[in-house]
Amino acid sequence: MARILTLTLNPALDLTVRLPRLAPGAVNRSETLLTHAAGKGVNVAQVLADLGHHVSVGGFLGSANPQAFEALIAGRGFGDVFIRVPGETRSNIKIAEQDGRVTDINAPGPLVSEQAQQDLLNRIATVGLDFDVVVVAGSLPRGVSPQWFQGMLEHLKNLGLKVVLDTSGEALRAGLKAGPWMVKPNTEELAEALDNATDAVSQLRQQGVEHVVVSDGAAGVTWYSSGATLHATPPRVTVASTVGAGDSLLAGMLHGLLSGDTPEQTLRRATAIAAMAVTQIGFGISDDAHLARLESGVVVRPLTEQ
Amino acid sequence: MARILTLTLNPALDLTVRLPRLAPGAVNRSETLLTHAAGKGVNVAQVLADLGHHVSVGGFLGSANPQAFEALIAGRGFGDVFIRVPGETRSNIKIAEQDGRVTDINAPGPLVSEQAQQDLLNRIATVGLDFDVVVVAGSLPRGVSPQWFQGMLEHLKNLGLKVVLDTSGEALRAGLKAGPWMVKPNTEELAEALDNATDAVSQLRQQGVEHVVVSDGAAGVTWYSSGATLHATPPRVTVASTVGAGDSLLAGMLHGLLSGDTPEQTLRRATAIAAMAVTQIGFGISDDAHLARLESGVVVRPLTEQ
Repeated sequence: MARILTLTLNPALDLTVRLPRLAPGAVNRSETLLTHAAGKGVNVAQVLADLGHHVSVGGFLGSANPQAFEALIAGRGFGDVFIRVPGETRSNIKIAEQDGRVTDINAPGPLVSEQAQQDLLNRIATVGLDFDVVVVAGSLPRGVSPQWFQGMLEHLKNLGLKVVLDTSGEALRAGLKAGPWMVKPNTEELAEALDNATDAVSQLRQQGVEHVVVSDGAAGVTWYSSGATLHATPPRVTVASTVGAGDSLLAGMLHGLLSGDTPEQTLRRATAIAAMAVTQIGFGISDDAHLARLESGVVVRPLTEQ
Repeated sequence: MARILTLTLNPALDLTVRLPRLAPGAVNRSETLLTHAAGKGVNVAQVLADLGHHVSVGGFLGSANPQAFEALIAGRGFGDVFIRVPGETRSNIKIAEQDGRVTDINAPGPLVSEQAQQDLLNRIATVGLDFDVVVVAGSLPRGVSPQWFQGMLEHLKNLGLKVVLDTSGEALRAGLKAGPWMVKPNTEELAEALDNATDAVSQLRQQGVEHVVVSDGAAGVTWYSSGATLHATPPRVTVASTVGAGDSLLAGMLHGLLSGDTPEQTLRRATAIAAMAVTQIGFGISDDAHLARLESGVVVRPLTEQ
């Protein structure tokens, strides 16, 4: 099993409330309010741990409300590489109504100082050699520039780490310049980050990106690598929530590559793990038999030889 | 300065988000999300501390998210008499829009076990003699019966404490049977708790309640006691938020009575402190000059001699 660090620079507390129907301007009584430590890298870490890997989690965490994160870290036995910063980690409120409508309210996170950014680089320099792979996932917090982000990725590469990048917009654009080992954009993120979307994948491969994994929801996943281009179509599933599906796909790809699985089996299982996330409120590998059934429903085919 | 304990059996975390306009079913970006440790007794404690009293706070606190409460307790130098119970303290989400519309989403709190209820009684027995007055404020959590609540109030009285009660519904109905020293219902709460509302106040006085303070929003406050009945009309103010206004009134009444102020001055200042809360987002005594101006605008007059 591999030793993996995931970095989430802008984690979030997910607060999910369930209501029969949201009545704006009134007092609504919710049946439940669930608080989850969230953020892409934190999600990826949980799926990787389900798959048996040793995982540490890091990034920036508001010192005023770290409790949900610290409970998750302790409960899952993660290493803690988070730098604490003044203020509260941002909260994302999800209001889920009985008919399936979801209203999101996303709050801003803490401002991350230059000192805290330097502290994270120092921390990475100290612990970096303990890991084989680093997953850098999610958006940039206030105070962190795309340029600093690119420099951090280069710093990680210079430590000999395989860098997996999952972000969007300016952060993806800057991060690609560092030449990560793997990227996992969805089709919109890819088009947004590169000027010439038609030639996007060859651009990335020329920039030294070894694995380009492009997700397109129910239409499936395309994986471009030096050996081949494979496409996987997931089985049809009933969607409970897409939260964590992309993070599950990324964790599954990493698992296959680090475990020496064949490319076909790597993509098949990763696609099934993502499909399994979609069938759940939440995500994670809770049922091996269910996962095996989903795997057998994934169709993998080669697209072109490169 | 008096030594005061406030008990909040069902505290809440207030999460306030501000939005230009709530769009149900969409992703909304809020400018701020503020988290406050709240609950009537916790609010009363803060105003009493502003007025110079030594205060401890207690009740039941979910052990999964005590951080905002612990930070408030440490920051204000409160004594901590909270019993920790499994689960999360309930959250009340307030969505405040630019046009002033507020949508509340109130979540259920933890279930309080009989063991935890006994732990609170034991804790009170240990620390009770350190206090002159106990304020018991707010609703009952899941698992706590009105009968147990009445017994707790009797337990507090038997320790020689002056008991101040501020609750509603079944809890008020049961609590009144214990004969508290002071109650502070609003007009609706009073009518709901007593079968014959027209004769409500004499009923209460006969049950041994020494001070009945009835609030009626902008119409003012009526204070029934053995000496006299006084009515106060607050000055007209611009309403920013009524959060904490009743708690401020209660704290102000207690302050005047414990400081030996005249009845007229007690009611005048308490009414002004409540009016001051109304002018703020939040509450508390932040500006002594402003409070003095509000005090001079309060009209106090005797209603009847009893």
